[in-house]
Amino acid sequence: MTAPAPSPRTPAVTALGGGHGLFASLSALRLMSDPLTAVVTVADDGGSSGRLRDELDVLPPGDLRMALAALCDDSDWGRTWSDLLQHRFVSGGSLDKHAMGNLMIVALWELLGDTVTGLDWVGRLLGARGRVLPMASVPLVVEADVRHDDGAALETVVGQSRVAVTDGRIEQLRLVPADPPACAEAVEAVRAADWVVLGPGSWYSSVLVHLLVPELARALHETDARVCVTLNLAAERGETQGLTATDHLEALHRHAPGLRVDAVLADPSAVEDVDELADAAQTMGARLLMRQVRRGDGTARHDALRLAAAYRDVFEGVYGDV
Amino acid sequence: MTAPAPSPRTPAVTALGGGHGLFASLSALRLMSDPLTAVVTVADDGGSSGRLRDELDVLPPGDLRMALAALCDDSDWGRTWSDLLQHRFVSGGSLDKHAMGNLMIVALWELLGDTVTGLDWVGRLLGARGRVLPMASVPLVVEADVRHDDGAALETVVGQSRVAVTDGRIEQLRLVPADPPACAEAVEAVRAADWVVLGPGSWYSSVLVHLLVPELARALHETDARVCVTLNLAAERGETQGLTATDHLEALHRHAPGLRVDAVLADPSAVEDVDELADAAQTMGARLLMRQVRRGDGTARHDALRLAAAYRDVFEGVYGDV
Repeated sequence: MTAPAPSPRTPAVTALGGGHGLFASLSALRLMSDPLTAVVTVADDGGSSGRLRDELDVLPPGDLRMALAALCDDSDWGRTWSDLLQHRFVSGGSLDKHAMGNLMIVALWELLGDTVTGLDWVGRLLGARGRVLPMASVPLVVEADVRHDDGAALETVVGQSRVAVTDGRIEQLRLVPADPPACAEAVEAVRAADWVVLGPGSWYSSVLVHLLVPELARALHETDARVCVTLNLAAERGETQGLTATDHLEALHRHAPGLRVDAVLADPSAVEDVDELADAAQTMGARLLMRQVRRGDGTARHDALRLAAAYRDVFEGVYGDV
Repeated sequence: MTAPAPSPRTPAVTALGGGHGLFASLSALRLMSDPLTAVVTVADDGGSSGRLRDELDVLPPGDLRMALAALCDDSDWGRTWSDLLQHRFVSGGSLDKHAMGNLMIVALWELLGDTVTGLDWVGRLLGARGRVLPMASVPLVVEADVRHDDGAALETVVGQSRVAVTDGRIEQLRLVPADPPACAEAVEAVRAADWVVLGPGSWYSSVLVHLLVPELARALHETDARVCVTLNLAAERGETQGLTATDHLEALHRHAPGLRVDAVLADPSAVEDVDELADAAQTMGARLLMRQVRRGDGTARHDALRLAAAYRDVFEGVYGDV
């Protein structure tokens, strides 16, 4: 008789992103990583977050709120408070479209005087299956140099909400301030992880933006963690209009030429040319893993369980076709 | 040897009021009653509550929030969430002076679709030592007929925030609508209690107003519970300007002539004429209990422990002078 092989240790995972993309990756990673840390963009300047940022001079809380909601305990308690965080007021007045969780996070910051402590309290409320941290300690502004088809000079587009919907091609992304202080706990989570997951998400404004925070970029380059890049299921109207999967990966390479990547995860339905994509992955040191991770309902959204199964294969090194 | 006398059973107490007065009585009663139920006025039309009422067409949450905060568990967890409920935004914008707990309560109402369920969830969050219920299921408007010193005709003052600061003498208080649906759980809590506590608080707009909700008034008249009236420590600028302790009790008698009262609790420093007050109490069937319940800091605020000791005497029938 042979003894059964020991179960692989649950890996420590740090996921970088923002918005719906990070919500999708956390919904999968919560099933299979421990500790799980989300590092979240703080450059949003639109919607409820943008208004709070303007009115109260705080970090935009919206992407942090969504990440926390994704990590709620799978119980009546966890789901109710998560639903409350996500609840938006609807009125003809000044509260219209404010997300309850945005207000709660900001109030905890004001009450407790510390960003990470406030987020940890929301995590405790939700019984969260992981920790949520901002990528930087100060609110950021995203700027992009955009090339339009008409051949005119580069346009500088300012602000994440404008960059996200620009109809030109983004050539270069910058942060203002250019050298913001990173969140120390986020840097440490990148250095201590077994795996770092980048994407999916709005490619420039939620994913690549992490590579523009110097201390965070340094940690990403220096960490012993392996790095998985999860590609989107479709190009988005706006910032990635018309880009192929390979274009996405090349944009990452262009913004972080020295970054070693170990795995690139893509859905077959979102890849025009698999060989080209595999070559681009190899340029960064990565193997390509093609897995069906899209929902079965026809939307361009990730299915949490399929994505979890794919991450398991990534983390366990099961790269063969299935 | 005689066996020690059995400890008196912890009484079921239902406390009626609103605002800072109810906060004070709950801060004391939480130490010595089980179950403890707060029945709270929903006629506020000023401040953060008034703005939410106008913008979202909901019950004014402010008095409910304060009562919940008073009942929080005595732990880091309970106090932190209670402090969050009480936190107010300060800005030059539209969130200025909104209390976080008001927003949370309203969001829970919208999310869960039921007033009592929403309040119970806040209670669970706080680990609350009791339950908080509204006195009515619909927002109410308070109207008062006010007599001014100049001998002019009665003025009708509309709205709790205006009634609270009127500089005339209130002759009659009314609700609009005149026959609002009571909260069924509040009515039941009055009927099931061992003791009902009325006051302290803004005498007309937070205390007497409970006697104007027909079903609640009927329950107060019919309940087997004994009734304790806790008088204020001082007349307030506005609605009770110039009223003596006896005047307060007589105003209650005028608005509920058939109400039997068992105990009247007053602080010696707030009573001009003890014999007159004792007579007025006796008219309603009540014994007068004089106890130092004021804080030692010179403010006209109740001390939670002194008030708790006084309630213990009331509930145990220890009426002697101390």
